[in-house]
Amino acid sequence: MSLVIVGSLAFDTIETPSERRERVIGGSATYCALAASYFTSPYLVGVVGEDFPQEVIKLFQHRGIDLTGLEVKEGRTFHWEGRYGHDPNHRLTLKLELNVFGDFHPSLPRKYRQAGIIFLANIDPDLQEEILHQVVNPRLVAMDTIDHWIKNKREALFRVLKKVDILLANEEEIKLLTDEINLIRAGRKILQLGPELVVIKKGEHGALVLGEGWVFGVLAHPCEEVIDPTGAGDCFAGGFLGYLDRVRQLSQRAIKRAAVYGSVMASFAIEDFGIERLKNLKEEEIKERFLEFKKLVSFA
Amino acid sequence: MSLVIVGSLAFDTIETPSERRERVIGGSATYCALAASYFTSPYLVGVVGEDFPQEVIKLFQHRGIDLTGLEVKEGRTFHWEGRYGHDPNHRLTLKLELNVFGDFHPSLPRKYRQAGIIFLANIDPDLQEEILHQVVNPRLVAMDTIDHWIKNKREALFRVLKKVDILLANEEEIKLLTDEINLIRAGRKILQLGPELVVIKKGEHGALVLGEGWVFGVLAHPCEEVIDPTGAGDCFAGGFLGYLDRVRQLSQRAIKRAAVYGSVMASFAIEDFGIERLKNLKEEEIKERFLEFKKLVSFA
Repeated sequence: MSLVIVGSLAFDTIETPSERRERVIGGSATYCALAASYFTSPYLVGVVGEDFPQEVIKLFQHRGIDLTGLEVKEGRTFHWEGRYGHDPNHRLTLKLELNVFGDFHPSLPRKYRQAGIIFLANIDPDLQEEILHQVVNPRLVAMDTIDHWIKNKREALFRVLKKVDILLANEEEIKLLTDEINLIRAGRKILQLGPELVVIKKGEHGALVLGEGWVFGVLAHPCEEVIDPTGAGDCFAGGFLGYLDRVRQLSQRAIKRAAVYGSVMASFAIEDFGIERLKNLKEEEIKERFLEFKKLVSFA
Repeated sequence: MSLVIVGSLAFDTIETPSERRERVIGGSATYCALAASYFTSPYLVGVVGEDFPQEVIKLFQHRGIDLTGLEVKEGRTFHWEGRYGHDPNHRLTLKLELNVFGDFHPSLPRKYRQAGIIFLANIDPDLQEEILHQVVNPRLVAMDTIDHWIKNKREALFRVLKKVDILLANEEEIKLLTDEINLIRAGRKILQLGPELVVIKKGEHGALVLGEGWVFGVLAHPCEEVIDPTGAGDCFAGGFLGYLDRVRQLSQRAIKRAAVYGSVMASFAIEDFGIERLKNLKEEEIKERFLEFKKLVSFA
């Protein structure tokens, strides 16, 4: 079908309780595209400055990621700086330099407009809508968002929600969006806002998928040390949508397996800083971890 | 093998955001024994006052619960009063009247001392130890505890931990006990304190079972409204240990299935106030819910 991924490419400066890393490669589209690249050849839409390393561009190409939709602009790449506490689910944004991302208004390349799956990673909902105007009858549109847009662009966000098939968001965002504490009730509320499916990412507790009349749950991979949680959610989306693109099916079974592959990719992402762990995964490692997820919940 | 359950029997006055119920029947041993009674005929050890309703005694008998170890003492039954917020995982104790439970020092009936499985529900660790001195080579000893004992009787608690095979406790208690935020690391630490197995109850996120070299996870039953969370953990223990007693096996497979039955019983408990839902469950309902738990995580 082909999968278009729209989002940010960035330098991240990351502080964890044990380490600080300056300007590692990050961004929602970066993580998502790399994760998806193990299942399909995604189309990337984003913008970088002239300072973006050529070796990362080469890595993208090597991983089969289509870069026709990647703009290289005069100026500097988006830069985020954040700090994680002992609880990796909580982070503080210390600095945000939008740079070339500030006036990002992509015009999708012609072949991207016919794609079967569109993923709108966490960006301004107005921008998400702009992109939806450019695509022609996609089979599946998925989106992510963050608390910032829920708090400050609620109306635009609700407008986009009406037009998408899947919302992927984390537990706190889902609760904030629906004003519900109970996750099942919150999920059902989302299904009334437009999406046919909601994926609730719960960090160390795994993820829930809710559709009309059914629920599916994935556990998180048992992990004793989260090195860097950045990008885990985007990698979930990459594995999830990449798998759906590969199997060209949207059956309940495919969606469940996709959610497990999403969790698989997220579980790799947190094992090292930035995209380190995602650069060179082997088929075998992914398969093996998929089986570990199976074993984790099997009691037959 | 036979299963001995030692804990409290109580009147609970419960406030939830939508309702207040006065003096419903509660207590860790009550919940645990009722849940276990769907799998085996547990032996109950506890104390009640003269005000404890005869109809509940009859219910216990009807459910095949052995009451040789139940003392009826002059005075009033233990009374707890608590309030739940919108988040059912957080509760506030408003009142605690120990009454006859205040000087509870049970002497186990002879036939109880030979039992295969001993469950020490949440009581003073000194009392838990007292009971362990009375039993003869049990095949399995499991215990629960709460934050109060972790904070105020740490030494005694660590002494008991050395002597038990399984610790069942909730997420917050496990973190408090180990001073760890990461649950997998916390669980592994528990395994170094004595138990061979730790069961971490996570409310709406389900439960994790950790043994030497393996992890198993159960999701919570998707529940849109928790009517009364009281007793869910004790019902988990009842289903878990009741099942193990029934199958007379401690294999990994049996333990995994036991954890699912624990979750099944906990999921019933929260559907109504007090023990209402646990009085008259049908075989069929339990079987059906077990299958729902399977469906919830199956992706083959």
